[in-house]
Amino acid sequence: MIVVMEPGATQEQIETVVKRVAEFGFGTKIVVGAERSIVGVLGAPLPDTLKEALELLPGVEEVVRITKRYKLVSRDFHPIDTVVHVRDVAIGGNEVAVIAGPCSVESEEQIIETARAVKAAGARLLRGGAYKPRTSPYEFRGLGETGLKYLAKAREETGLPIVTEVLSPQDVDLVAEYADVLQVGARNCQNYLLLEAVGKAKKPVLLKRGMSVQIEEWLLAAEYVMAQGNEQVILCERGIRTFETFTRNTLDLAAVPVVKRLSHLPIIVDPSHGTGRWYLVPSMMLAAVAAGADGLIVEVHPNPDHALSDGAQSLTFENFATVMPRLAAVAQAVGRSLPLPQVPEAETALSPAD
Amino acid sequence: MIVVMEPGATQEQIETVVKRVAEFGFGTKIVVGAERSIVGVLGAPLPDTLKEALELLPGVEEVVRITKRYKLVSRDFHPIDTVVHVRDVAIGGNEVAVIAGPCSVESEEQIIETARAVKAAGARLLRGGAYKPRTSPYEFRGLGETGLKYLAKAREETGLPIVTEVLSPQDVDLVAEYADVLQVGARNCQNYLLLEAVGKAKKPVLLKRGMSVQIEEWLLAAEYVMAQGNEQVILCERGIRTFETFTRNTLDLAAVPVVKRLSHLPIIVDPSHGTGRWYLVPSMMLAAVAAGADGLIVEVHPNPDHALSDGAQSLTFENFATVMPRLAAVAQAVGRSLPLPQVPEAETALSPAD
Amino acid sequence: MIVVMEPGATQEQIETVVKRVAEFGFGTKIVVGAERSIVGVLGAPLPDTLKEALELLPGVEEVVRITKRYKLVSRDFHPIDTVVHVRDVAIGGNEVAVIAGPCSVESEEQIIETARAVKAAGARLLRGGAYKPRTSPYEFRGLGETGLKYLAKAREETGLPIVTEVLSPQDVDLVAEYADVLQVGARNCQNYLLLEAVGKAKKPVLLKRGMSVQIEEWLLAAEYVMAQGNEQVILCERGIRTFETFTRNTLDLAAVPVVKRLSHLPIIVDPSHGTGRWYLVPSMMLAAVAAGADGLIVEVHPNPDHALSDGAQSLTFENFATVMPRLAAVAQAVGRSLPLPQVPEAETALSPAD
Amino acid sequence: MIVVMEPGATQEQIETVVKRVAEFGFGTKIVVGAERSIVGVLGAPLPDTLKEALELLPGVEEVVRITKRYKLVSRDFHPIDTVVHVRDVAIGGNEVAVIAGPCSVESEEQIIETARAVKAAGARLLRGGAYKPRTSPYEFRGLGETGLKYLAKAREETGLPIVTEVLSPQDVDLVAEYADVLQVGARNCQNYLLLEAVGKAKKPVLLKRGMSVQIEEWLLAAEYVMAQGNEQVILCERGIRTFETFTRNTLDLAAVPVVKRLSHLPIIVDPSHGTGRWYLVPSMMLAAVAAGADGLIVEVHPNPDHALSDGAQSLTFENFATVMPRLAAVAQAVGRSLPLPQVPEAETALSPAD
Repeated sequence: MIVVMEPGATQEQIETVVKRVAEFGFGTKIVVGAERSIVGVLGAPLPDTLKEALELLPGVEEVVRITKRYKLVSRDFHPIDTVVHVRDVAIGGNEVAVIAGPCSVESEEQIIETARAVKAAGARLLRGGAYKPRTSPYEFRGLGETGLKYLAKAREETGLPIVTEVLSPQDVDLVAEYADVLQVGARNCQNYLLLEAVGKAKKPVLLKRGMSVQIEEWLLAAEYVMAQGNEQVILCERGIRTFETFTRNTLDLAAVPVVKRLSHLPIIVDPSHGTGRWYLVPSMMLAAVAAGADGLIVEVHPNPDHALSDGAQSLTFENFATVMPRLAAVAQAVGRSLPLPQVPEAETALSPAD
Repeated sequence: MIVVMEPGATQEQIETVVKRVAEFGFGTKIVVGAERSIVGVLGAPLPDTLKEALELLPGVEEVVRITKRYKLVSRDFHPIDTVVHVRDVAIGGNEVAVIAGPCSVESEEQIIETARAVKAAGARLLRGGAYKPRTSPYEFRGLGETGLKYLAKAREETGLPIVTEVLSPQDVDLVAEYADVLQVGARNCQNYLLLEAVGKAKKPVLLKRGMSVQIEEWLLAAEYVMAQGNEQVILCERGIRTFETFTRNTLDLAAVPVVKRLSHLPIIVDPSHGTGRWYLVPSMMLAAVAAGADGLIVEVHPNPDHALSDGAQSLTFENFATVMPRLAAVAQAVGRSLPLPQVPEAETALSPAD
Repeated sequence: MIVVMEPGATQEQIETVVKRVAEFGFGTKIVVGAERSIVGVLGAPLPDTLKEALELLPGVEEVVRITKRYKLVSRDFHPIDTVVHVRDVAIGGNEVAVIAGPCSVESEEQIIETARAVKAAGARLLRGGAYKPRTSPYEFRGLGETGLKYLAKAREETGLPIVTEVLSPQDVDLVAEYADVLQVGARNCQNYLLLEAVGKAKKPVLLKRGMSVQIEEWLLAAEYVMAQGNEQVILCERGIRTFETFTRNTLDLAAVPVVKRLSHLPIIVDPSHGTGRWYLVPSMMLAAVAAGADGLIVEVHPNPDHALSDGAQSLTFENFATVMPRLAAVAQAVGRSLPLPQVPEAETALSPAD
Repeated sequence: MIVVMEPGATQEQIETVVKRVAEFGFGTKIVVGAERSIVGVLGAPLPDTLKEALELLPGVEEVVRITKRYKLVSRDFHPIDTVVHVRDVAIGGNEVAVIAGPCSVESEEQIIETARAVKAAGARLLRGGAYKPRTSPYEFRGLGETGLKYLAKAREETGLPIVTEVLSPQDVDLVAEYADVLQVGARNCQNYLLLEAVGKAKKPVLLKRGMSVQIEEWLLAAEYVMAQGNEQVILCERGIRTFETFTRNTLDLAAVPVVKRLSHLPIIVDPSHGTGRWYLVPSMMLAAVAAGADGLIVEVHPNPDHALSDGAQSLTFENFATVMPRLAAVAQAVGRSLPLPQVPEAETALSPAD
């Protein structure tokens, strides 16, 4: 932490800074500059409280933090990539893992049919919401535990592990009974009690970035989970809120290489919420993998125009099946693999762009 | 809801739209335009699901919602201003109510001393956090129930009603035992389970706007509370997240007259979080009241440079006492009242600007 | 400027930094910290190029600028408030100056009629566009020099000085022949050639903040004007672009006290573009003055629903005349004055809030 | 255009709307709904002025535009992709075109050396700034015409066509003498006089998206160019301004498929300004091509840590040469081609991800 003094700061003001830092138990080093002096604070980790305390002292112009606020998620202390294992699927290794399924579980038939279709096209995990956060209180909010049971049935039928959202600390145990991966949604990215609750669970956690959450804050949210002893965290970029209204969110694909640089955790991308329009999803699937994403989570529905939620951003089975071979080709082009059940890759590599 | 067809949409495509709407149980009316036709959907309220379903039909270019998604919070159905009563204080009437106190309750002495000071300066309610959401897991997170007890003691001593934050549905009962107003923080503005839990409580709710929440979504969050039968909702603008980094957030004061127009609920402003810098707080207090706010919530600390949280944006007792007479003068200038314990208003109206 | 080295940076890497700084002609001071070392760069002003050069050196984690990038606009070197004189009106002194008029000059009658009406209500300057930047090429773009002539006529009739926009360096001379204040619009806030052209003119400049321009960048834009020798710069906050769509822009009123702190230049507020809706304008006028603005620029039109541009955000004569006495009362409450032609202030101070 | 009436709108108010539309020369059709009526306005194109006029009429709640505001850039009227030809390079066809070079032309040697290096690695056009817009007036602003001459020399040496920025209408002729493509920078995206000036030139125009410009507004900016008769417009996504501060801008790659859907114009991506950090550039190059971009514009410098501008986001020759074969592999994977001078593609397709 560096304390930048105002141009005319007095010797006494500098000493007050030094004393205040000492009260927190840290050392200092003073640099007298041409125009202004600075006081370097030695020690780590330095609390936010110290920063705020120093900012208020007379003669202080600014306090600049130079050490990171997170440790467990940082690549500095854990240089090797973390690979999260979900049953037989590894997320964060060479293979690109695709999670697909409907926004909401609507019926047993719907989820089983979808599970079969996405598996046939190359998905390795099944998504489906049983508890849905909705902006309006007058919309469908999921089937609850019944939905979880249908998901379990779909897993039984297809072998696909299940990713599903948990909304509240008191639901974690119940959801963890059925789910293979506990999803924390964008709206709960900074719901710290929920983060700690999933941190105590023994299941992998898929942590979506909040709509207005900076990358550093997102990593701090992951730190909450890891601080409870759960190291199986998968980050998921799903778009941030900006002034652009054509798309539902602005998918921040640069977050992929940024996270890769700052952290050892795997990162996947959600192009469905990231764009809000189904016809933009395939391009963003390809782009995300090209950017280095370890996987994708994509909304697929047997009949999007009859979906109970997020129909506008859901792919049909056919759309999904069409894009997967192209996705595999892109994965290969960037040195990753995405094994498909059957379709010969040679053909697809030559197919025209959409 | 209006379904805008593409320029070359066929008669058959229009009929598919009409049929799909009928499946949802609503009527339609077709307008054939020069360039494109539109289908008006008759009925209210129309679910989001219908909108998404129609957007996916062939030949449909866009679906535009023209009815509001909220009802209980809307001024359309409740033209008279709601006044929320907290013990002897009315929020939403002619009087401007100021809530003041520290970010966190740190000790019994601290909260009682602050309560006395802010009361003497004209505050009508006391704020103080016992449960603090923090971006980093390594910061002070509040005293919990002990903090609530200190708050109650401060109320006993001063008579000031208490506003304090609740973070999770399972804490609502406990917090409601002590608090006069249940605060839902910005990070929980779209935590729907928490909204419903405070909606079931019999206490007024102070609902902060989320950092990236549009006004319509904020009103829908209030709708969640009201839909559970709790009509005592106070909205609180506290700044939104933008590209400007000098201030912690961008205080959106236009939200005050916007909310006044759309809703009957009272709205207050938090200039402390709205700016993040104590020296900007007084100007924004004055501006908020001039804009028509029904009250303010302001961070005040006996010793900001020793605060355990938010020191940088906290006023000292002296700063707070200095601005209050000027605030009363502004209130009067816009036809509101803000009675102060003693200071004669005639003088303050002539005091120089800061 | 402070160069933060990576945790494991070598002595050699630190020396490379020192050498590179020396090539630019500046000195350094090294602080060895617990976890990482820092190199302080001594000297001012330090160019961006140096910052970028250092960021690329091996072992460097981050380079933090601690001196301001602007000088002439800074309060550090010019502690006294600048007052800009436009004929008999002073902007930046104790009096709050209101500039009013239509978005576009549409006819001689329209501008003269408006000038009379706004003068009678208390405006001290007249605004009106002769050259209009429009998002679509198919809209009305102003009367050009004819519009300037009508403005001059309106000034003759009423004595109100004229504020009008200039769009291009080659138009500066022509516009300056007629105008008393040269307005640089939000879209041109970073059009550096235009800034230099108005910097060479001998007329005051009203510099609007760009839609996505940070306060520091806005001050740097003002620095461009001042660097050409023109010290008569008035800053104008007019709303920034955010995710909120109900209002046309988000009016950032905290920019007023921020600018007052960082700079000696006067700052005014444009609540018309800041909100985009006429019924929000009066509240934001009051709030801006309460926040400490030195003036306002407001769109007023004899017949907003027949305006050729910006009708939706224009006040009628009556709306404008109604708000002015209330504005004067707010000005007085914050220790400023806003002398009105006739209306007795005592009455208006008691009128109810809108 | 659809006029949505308020719930209690009277017959008379509806008739006023109809009359006002008729004054503009357009027809109407009324739909009486359950809760509110709507008036459809028939005709195209409908001016913004009409929209604003109607919004102000009593009983009107909202006016919704349903026709696009641009025509010439729209795919509706021009379904076939436009291919822009720059000497022997086609932009917008099957081949992905890479434009590379330094931010600023600094010397004859620098630009020629860079031209040779980027050509050898597979670039098809050379970029380099002779006129640089800079946030601070105290930075290097380009060599002016001398820079243009050096660019021309580099073209002579290598055959690479030149892309360079023009800042002002009066410079268009001079720049067009040397340049093959006239670049309009992000800060000038809504500088309408400049757009018209390049619209009159007989050279292709590369139009960057402004930092806070919505896609629709960007297309309207292109419409300004096309409305002057110049159909050779290349759009360039270069990142938008958001709350995320780790990257210089947020690269909005979804804009690529959005533009492809709405317009026939080619679109390329600038990952250098889009991220601001050289180590993020390669990933974003790959992602952009996977998303369907027709080309890239990338900053490459012989010695980034000695660059006079934008060093932090410039690739070295080696970085650039390393990523190109991988880019070609991604292009092939999505059905596009990117012919490289020599490197065998088979090898690169198997190289590991960075």
